[in-house]
Amino acid sequence: MIPDRSSLTSWLGASPAEDGPLPKLAITAGEAGGVGPELALKAASMAEVCRRCVPIVYGPVGLLRRVARRLDLPFPPDAVDIGRLDPDQVRPGHFDALTGAASYAAVEHAIDDALAKRVDAIVTGPIQKEAWHEAGIRFAGHTELLAARTGTDEVRMMLTSDSIACALVTIHLPLADVPAAVTIDGVESTIRMAADAVARRLRRPPRVTVCGLNPHAGENGLFSHGEEEAVIAPAIARVRRDGLRVTDPVSPDTAFTPARRADTDVYICMYHDQGLIPLKALSFDEGVNVTLGLPIVRTSVDHGTALDLAWQGKADHRSMLAAIRLAIEMAG
Amino acid sequence: MIPDRSSLTSWLGASPAEDGPLPKLAITAGEAGGVGPELALKAASMAEVCRRCVPIVYGPVGLLRRVARRLDLPFPPDAVDIGRLDPDQVRPGHFDALTGAASYAAVEHAIDDALAKRVDAIVTGPIQKEAWHEAGIRFAGHTELLAARTGTDEVRMMLTSDSIACALVTIHLPLADVPAAVTIDGVESTIRMAADAVARRLRRPPRVTVCGLNPHAGENGLFSHGEEEAVIAPAIARVRRDGLRVTDPVSPDTAFTPARRADTDVYICMYHDQGLIPLKALSFDEGVNVTLGLPIVRTSVDHGTALDLAWQGKADHRSMLAAIRLAIEMAG
Repeated sequence: MIPDRSSLTSWLGASPAEDGPLPKLAITAGEAGGVGPELALKAASMAEVCRRCVPIVYGPVGLLRRVARRLDLPFPPDAVDIGRLDPDQVRPGHFDALTGAASYAAVEHAIDDALAKRVDAIVTGPIQKEAWHEAGIRFAGHTELLAARTGTDEVRMMLTSDSIACALVTIHLPLADVPAAVTIDGVESTIRMAADAVARRLRRPPRVTVCGLNPHAGENGLFSHGEEEAVIAPAIARVRRDGLRVTDPVSPDTAFTPARRADTDVYICMYHDQGLIPLKALSFDEGVNVTLGLPIVRTSVDHGTALDLAWQGKADHRSMLAAIRLAIEMAG
Repeated sequence: MIPDRSSLTSWLGASPAEDGPLPKLAITAGEAGGVGPELALKAASMAEVCRRCVPIVYGPVGLLRRVARRLDLPFPPDAVDIGRLDPDQVRPGHFDALTGAASYAAVEHAIDDALAKRVDAIVTGPIQKEAWHEAGIRFAGHTELLAARTGTDEVRMMLTSDSIACALVTIHLPLADVPAAVTIDGVESTIRMAADAVARRLRRPPRVTVCGLNPHAGENGLFSHGEEEAVIAPAIARVRRDGLRVTDPVSPDTAFTPARRADTDVYICMYHDQGLIPLKALSFDEGVNVTLGLPIVRTSVDHGTALDLAWQGKADHRSMLAAIRLAIEMAG
């Protein structure tokens, strides 16, 4: 599914879009004191991006202008002025309740515009969670805000890189709590959400590889408490009834070999490190984080605010470009 | 630590050994009905192997001669005739109590010769565990026999490939049982055994990267039950007192990135898939399995008997060559 490295870097410079209007992307600037503003401005200024979409930067325009001037970046023709910030009060590398409230407002507005179909997808720049907290915002981060504002009960995280895509059944849990948190319903909905998202991107039914939970996928119960048979297999049986192309639970250690990768469009991983260890081991470029299960398309950079690099023009924009690319594909 | 791919394939053809006698390697033929005999014969016949060691094949000589004739392989000058087998009674692809007893006898004899320093290391071919069981042998496999016959209480498994080396704190356990099985003593002895083995190979103090157990190495207890602080960190503190170069518990998902790999000679992994997922995802060639903690050097192919390929000359001998190479390095 995932293009190889050369196609990743060449894609944005490839042929212009086919028929029809270009998709509109809301690109939120993220934390003002971090690298988000320059990443959004840089991406929106790139001709190869503008050939494939209409990038609209959401953020405090005064601050964005200041960063653009400082880094000699053109100011984008499309920007939505959100988040009251006195640009002279913001210092690179610093955040506070005001910058937190501003980055929050931009995301909130982008969600509303996506729900109203004024934009076709959201690409979020990195926020500082502590800044949201200082601003008294009750959401821990993007995902919680997205779920609440779109009225979504259940979301999943999918990470993609130039090598593989992994959807996670469980995320930020102690390893000891993972086995009990892997449920039939949880595996089933992860498979459905991932297959749906990847089908939208590939425009064909995806090939889904489902990892077991235990070493050797339990080796018929020898190294398990039967989770493969009692939990994962029933979820697979349910989605197969709808014609999804899904493997039996595979031994996790052989799931990510080159041969298996060539047969896989998306992996279903039972826990955080089962997916993220191979994704980061195999990846050359930055990954993209996709929120599955929403009624809107949302992709995100897979890195933080990098406060120490802010406003210096040194930030690596590969993850932002990859997030834009994926948003275009999923919105298309 | 691990040579890159090109050096892996070129190594055996490289310069002849330096000063001193060549190390003697006991290469056990493994299950007679599998690919073990041809792998041992092939390796022992290769000039590039014989320039770096004295390969001695341990197994039933009549059977070995039959396989050698069939595949037009030279019969090695050094062979130890162990395991009574009527060669005409053995069929490729089949095993029974007799072949099990024969492969067992060869390993037992090789261990005794290594303990008596008649050989410098053992390289084991693949056995069929069911055949040992049918022969009434009380050991489940090589590792249990090696531990018992050498009087070793505690052993560990280390897997190496052309990309990384991983020593495992726990192995074939259900994932749910892993957190309780990771103990201070277990982590400590895994680090010590792995550092010792790798130092013998590199002839310098190795750089050891210790993985956390939980996502983000627990993120200061946010995604853990404190295992990093209560179990892994104390083990690290103990070995640092002896001057070992060991990291703090690192976030497992970033442990195997290219930058971190370049700084790592051996990984300490808390569970099977934490080490084997990246090892197999990153590896081009076959891996090698090393038993740590023994008073003798023992390496092994990292594959099974491949009964369906037996005696056809089709078996891939890269893992056998890698196991021989590692045994020479560790014995040297």
